Amino acid sequence: MQRDLYEADHDAFRETVRAFLDREVVPHLDKWDAAGIVDRGLFATAGKAGLLGMEVPEQYGGGGVDDFRFNAVIGEEAARAGAAAAGLGITLHNDIALPYFLRYCTEEQRDRWLPGIVSGELITAIAMTEPGIGSDLASMSTTALRDGDHYVVNGAKTFITNGINADLVITAVKTDPAQRHKGMSLLIIERGMPGFERGRNLDKLGQHAQDTAELSFTDVAVPVTNLLGDEGQGFLQLVANLPQERLSIALSAVAAARVALEQTLEYVRARKAFGQPIGAFQNSKFVLAEIATEVDIAQQYVDRGIRLLNAGELTADDAAKAKWWCTELQGRVMDRCLQLHGGYGYMTEYPIARAFADARITRIYGGTTEIMKEIIGKSLGL
Amino acid sequence: MQRDLYEADHDAFRETVRAFLDREVVPHLDKWDAAGIVDRGLFATAGKAGLLGMEVPEQYGGGGVDDFRFNAVIGEEAARAGAAAAGLGITLHNDIALPYFLRYCTEEQRDRWLPGIVSGELITAIAMTEPGIGSDLASMSTTALRDGDHYVVNGAKTFITNGINADLVITAVKTDPAQRHKGMSLLIIERGMPGFERGRNLDKLGQHAQDTAELSFTDVAVPVTNLLGDEGQGFLQLVANLPQERLSIALSAVAAARVALEQTLEYVRARKAFGQPIGAFQNSKFVLAEIATEVDIAQQYVDRGIRLLNAGELTADDAAKAKWWCTELQGRVMDRCLQLHGGYGYMTEYPIARAFADARITRIYGGTTEIMKEIIGKSLGL
Amino acid sequence: MQRDLYEADHDAFRETVRAFLDREVVPHLDKWDAAGIVDRGLFATAGKAGLLGMEVPEQYGGGGVDDFRFNAVIGEEAARAGAAAAGLGITLHNDIALPYFLRYCTEEQRDRWLPGIVSGELITAIAMTEPGIGSDLASMSTTALRDGDHYVVNGAKTFITNGINADLVITAVKTDPAQRHKGMSLLIIERGMPGFERGRNLDKLGQHAQDTAELSFTDVAVPVTNLLGDEGQGFLQLVANLPQERLSIALSAVAAARVALEQTLEYVRARKAFGQPIGAFQNSKFVLAEIATEVDIAQQYVDRGIRLLNAGELTADDAAKAKWWCTELQGRVMDRCLQLHGGYGYMTEYPIARAFADARITRIYGGTTEIMKEIIGKSLGL
Amino acid sequence: MQRDLYEADHDAFRETVRAFLDREVVPHLDKWDAAGIVDRGLFATAGKAGLLGMEVPEQYGGGGVDDFRFNAVIGEEAARAGAAAAGLGITLHNDIALPYFLRYCTEEQRDRWLPGIVSGELITAIAMTEPGIGSDLASMSTTALRDGDHYVVNGAKTFITNGINADLVITAVKTDPAQRHKGMSLLIIERGMPGFERGRNLDKLGQHAQDTAELSFTDVAVPVTNLLGDEGQGFLQLVANLPQERLSIALSAVAAARVALEQTLEYVRARKAFGQPIGAFQNSKFVLAEIATEVDIAQQYVDRGIRLLNAGELTADDAAKAKWWCTELQGRVMDRCLQLHGGYGYMTEYPIARAFADARITRIYGGTTEIMKEIIGKSLGL
Repeated sequence: MQRDLYEADHDAFRETVRAFLDREVVPHLDKWDAAGIVDRGLFATAGKAGLLGMEVPEQYGGGGVDDFRFNAVIGEEAARAGAAAAGLGITLHNDIALPYFLRYCTEEQRDRWLPGIVSGELITAIAMTEPGIGSDLASMSTTALRDGDHYVVNGAKTFITNGINADLVITAVKTDPAQRHKGMSLLIIERGMPGFERGRNLDKLGQHAQDTAELSFTDVAVPVTNLLGDEGQGFLQLVANLPQERLSIALSAVAAARVALEQTLEYVRARKAFGQPIGAFQNSKFVLAEIATEVDIAQQYVDRGIRLLNAGELTADDAAKAKWWCTELQGRVMDRCLQLHGGYGYMTEYPIARAFADARITRIYGGTTEIMKEIIGKSLGL
Repeated sequence: MQRDLYEADHDAFRETVRAFLDREVVPHLDKWDAAGIVDRGLFATAGKAGLLGMEVPEQYGGGGVDDFRFNAVIGEEAARAGAAAAGLGITLHNDIALPYFLRYCTEEQRDRWLPGIVSGELITAIAMTEPGIGSDLASMSTTALRDGDHYVVNGAKTFITNGINADLVITAVKTDPAQRHKGMSLLIIERGMPGFERGRNLDKLGQHAQDTAELSFTDVAVPVTNLLGDEGQGFLQLVANLPQERLSIALSAVAAARVALEQTLEYVRARKAFGQPIGAFQNSKFVLAEIATEVDIAQQYVDRGIRLLNAGELTADDAAKAKWWCTELQGRVMDRCLQLHGGYGYMTEYPIARAFADARITRIYGGTTEIMKEIIGKSLGL
Repeated sequence: MQRDLYEADHDAFRETVRAFLDREVVPHLDKWDAAGIVDRGLFATAGKAGLLGMEVPEQYGGGGVDDFRFNAVIGEEAARAGAAAAGLGITLHNDIALPYFLRYCTEEQRDRWLPGIVSGELITAIAMTEPGIGSDLASMSTTALRDGDHYVVNGAKTFITNGINADLVITAVKTDPAQRHKGMSLLIIERGMPGFERGRNLDKLGQHAQDTAELSFTDVAVPVTNLLGDEGQGFLQLVANLPQERLSIALSAVAAARVALEQTLEYVRARKAFGQPIGAFQNSKFVLAEIATEVDIAQQYVDRGIRLLNAGELTADDAAKAKWWCTELQGRVMDRCLQLHGGYGYMTEYPIARAFADARITRIYGGTTEIMKEIIGKSLGL
Repeated sequence: MQRDLYEADHDAFRETVRAFLDREVVPHLDKWDAAGIVDRGLFATAGKAGLLGMEVPEQYGGGGVDDFRFNAVIGEEAARAGAAAAGLGITLHNDIALPYFLRYCTEEQRDRWLPGIVSGELITAIAMTEPGIGSDLASMSTTALRDGDHYVVNGAKTFITNGINADLVITAVKTDPAQRHKGMSLLIIERGMPGFERGRNLDKLGQHAQDTAELSFTDVAVPVTNLLGDEGQGFLQLVANLPQERLSIALSAVAAARVALEQTLEYVRARKAFGQPIGAFQNSKFVLAEIATEVDIAQQYVDRGIRLLNAGELTADDAAKAKWWCTELQGRVMDRCLQLHGGYGYMTEYPIARAFADARITRIYGGTTEIMKEIIGKSLGL
């Protein structure tokens, strides 16, 4: 069904994004894949092109437009360009990390950080997960103990997107280790603070250009002025921001699935076997009809979610539904489209092979499918 | 996600429909199930309550409102009342048969038929399928050969909803048997015309209150003035009306799935095993979270389809997508909800057992899932 | 893959069974379906034909052959004859109830009951489930309190197969209501004992010829000589006999699936659409290839299970695996085969419609799929 | 269910294989993965250990035992060692290429090649697929035109396992390009023949240690004495050998799935979340119970297939069933087990991440799932 989400401004922005990706991203993808990380200059370039911090007030250099549809355009176009991994860093910066700064910063903190976030000189990350705790955030063991005008931070985080490139890390810590949820707070830990070390860039199945790392903190002295919001509010802050994070993942998943569908349609129309295009076989036709249907359904759902998010009405279970279903769809679509490519689908020179590997993490990060179902089950009174 | 389809008028209409079902339908369901047919007086009662022909111009007694959302309300409420089979006759009359009369009748025909359709004194049906041809309409063999101011009709139709109760049967015939698609026309064949016989009311797996019958035509003389539109246009007329038919089926499927979900939620919250409500088991929770997600997604999709239909922009492949996906969902939901009921789910006194059996036809009638995928595949250029 | 389970004796027995079904069962199926029960004389006829108690020692009139393959032949042939519901009573008598008599009867009890069980004059049933407890047997509340040489039994059971026809009901009771598993015992409650009432024959989605009933016990005085085995052993006795019960259900499920496959193959080869047999469409071919594969795989698995059962080596988790997987397969196969029949699949005159409805209970009775997974999970150390 | 396939000899051989893998393979896996190829010396080492050519007659240095169970042991142990890619070269050499030499070689050819194949000095490959033809072998365009005592070969092959390491390539060619199936023959093309070039080692999603390459032939003069069997028999020869190839793939798929299951069981028992091992969550338990069931079922099926192969009774459709079902199972298992690992499952240091990527090709090579279903459909008369 035709979409009705976007207006002229978004279409214009899409042209900008597309041009940016063609010029600044696509030519470097192989290099960044091999390096396991994008050049950190990418963020500054994106900042110059107006792709960072669209909703940051103009006084800090931002676009001053609070409309998640612009973010969605970036997610869609990154998928279209085959730049999911490279795009993820920017999406994380814009969609997931930035809202914490906008919502919880003091005036002083805004002055200190927002301009750099918008310009791309300060790259952001968010550090929740710890080795061995998975989705059970309240059991985290990184501590931040108050000592005068500093917190002394000790602990480790893992699977941190932008982990190597990040300058500002929103770090979930226990300011009161005796408590579970209520002991959590968010601290901004900055590049260069003594005792803040990065582990190796983790070797992953896909998303090769995305730096994902372990971080460790040994007696890191973090000024109390780096606290985001109030002490003890960390868990609530995380929970409040997860719906947008999850919708962001969902929309990128749908976009990736759509791109795979289109590439596969092209492939099966062109490629022949037994005297006809392989797309003419009923099985191919049905598989692609199923995919086209589900991508369309998912798209309408995500579009509705974006409208609700803009209206401040997207609930936690709405976002959970979108997140698990769209990422599971993405997984199914990649698997089936790869199969329709036959042996070529297994060769990394074909985009579908990389898209398949890239997709496998989206059902896990941002809250696994299983956690999403727990959230929805709870909303059903179970 | 919250729905935004309906406005105050629809809510008011919903109250009317609900009251009507409670009063005129629900008390008779068991009787009608046993009889295999609703009392034909149901249509007149529905007509009096304003539930027939909402979009028929007021001069013929109709509501004069061309807004499919009112039709959707009826489909939803019939599902909620556990009256899918009884409701199907009305839905078929309103959503599927009526548009042919509104679009193709001459002024004379409108005068003749519309008042009775609106009042419920003339019950309608549409006869396309023939024994042995399935979805391949163009191969139908019922003929209508012109003889002066009459057509002489010979042939047979099967699986005709409202087959026993119908007074006016929109009948697809070959006015030019030498042709396939181009030889088809639509004739209104009326109750009592000599040579028009009804076979037995077919014994079905479910939908027991719905009369589904074979019709046979032996030298039935049908006046030329009963031709709907032009000769040779039959196939195009059918194709033009199928999207609305399919969307109607899709929305009822989603409504039925939603009702099953709600009933099952109630069941698993109340029923205990091994010392806790069975809804507290993670498996139950996950199953219901999956169902809740997919019902929500389907609802948003169908709602978007209804808006597009109202705007005249629902395409054939949009409707095909909605039809197959929502009815397959309905099947999955009934199967899983029945399972969550354990042994009780197999007992017909539990609504889920009947809903399971009722649901099994929706993936077949109005065009099978397989035909839907063919349509979508074609729209993809395959 | 070719089967290697059966030998000449079984083939000969199969001929007997087939002739018996053709003569004594098939002609009565419609009548029994309408009545909701088979004529109880069926058991005596089966007894005469040698189809009851094949492993009962010859001194009691039995076949004296402890080989479950003969039981399997009956299950397979009942499915082939479209007599699942009627056959279920016999299968229950032979495969599920009889082992309790063979294993736990005293010499006196053997003399009293085995001859009638073999001749079909004593029809058996087993009563475990109670209203409201589902699979949680240990929470049952039917009590049997010792009073001299009698137990006084009070309580109710439900979903009892052969519930109306049964003469001897193996009834799970609490002889020590203060305990859970350890308080359970098995009593034979006989037709005609004062206070033993049968509720109505339950109205089910399918399996119409099978009488399934509620039983109630009000101060029923049951002689202590009707205790099976020792007091307090009931739960262990049930657990010990469940693997055979579950394998019996699994093999009948595979047989039913195979029959549906064969009927559907015949249908799609004969029926045409768009100028070719519908079996020639690639989708039909793939669906049937998938079904043929899974039926074959399930068959080999069940055959292996039968050998292990004969050797006394079938474990509880082996049987659980066979039970859930084969019955879920049966459900999938019925659903897909019905769909391939189009509208005809929904008409009860087609065997697939009845097979579809009959199949829906097998994933529930004998332990639901969910309980099977719990058993397997436990065997995995989870 | 317990397996009954193996006897003492196989158990002893398994010890040998296991020791070999631990010593000669596992320590080099990372290096070979990085290189995209195993050291060709691996074959000679395997030959010395008795792991090559077990069924080659003793006079050529082989084991002289025609029992595919020994081959199965190697496939199983390679999976267990996490050496699927490295093992594939050996499996291909033994299970897939060798039978052509044993069945079709003249005495002179046996003398020339069998000793080297057994010793591992002559590494084999089989070249069927060509760029752009996929599964439609009969449309291949590599030609071998007779010119005196040579054939002149021109054309290209792709996706050739052992493509870089191979010394003897069984090459499917058209000796009569005017024909489809009947024009095909098999030629042994040898390392070093002028005009035989290898393309680059293809970069794949997984199976990194396996060299997969394009081969090209430009006016390669191949002596007529390198023809395998008779001219024009190529297609029949390929068809005759495919069942063993497919069973070999199926058994390795089951073995890989079993290893993933065991590793995941270990993981979920050890790892905790929300205060309990993640294996204690009902969802984990059910997922693993489902996997354990299906792996067990697949194992029994494959074991039966191996017995039938040994007996010369494994049909083409038997092998097709085993191939598609077991490899699809492998895909499902890898996907689900990866998910149970959470974020760790995406890290290549965890075996499941590599097993997931390695598995994605098995549904494609040796005949895609879709081709298998075509074969089975044909055997059903469709």
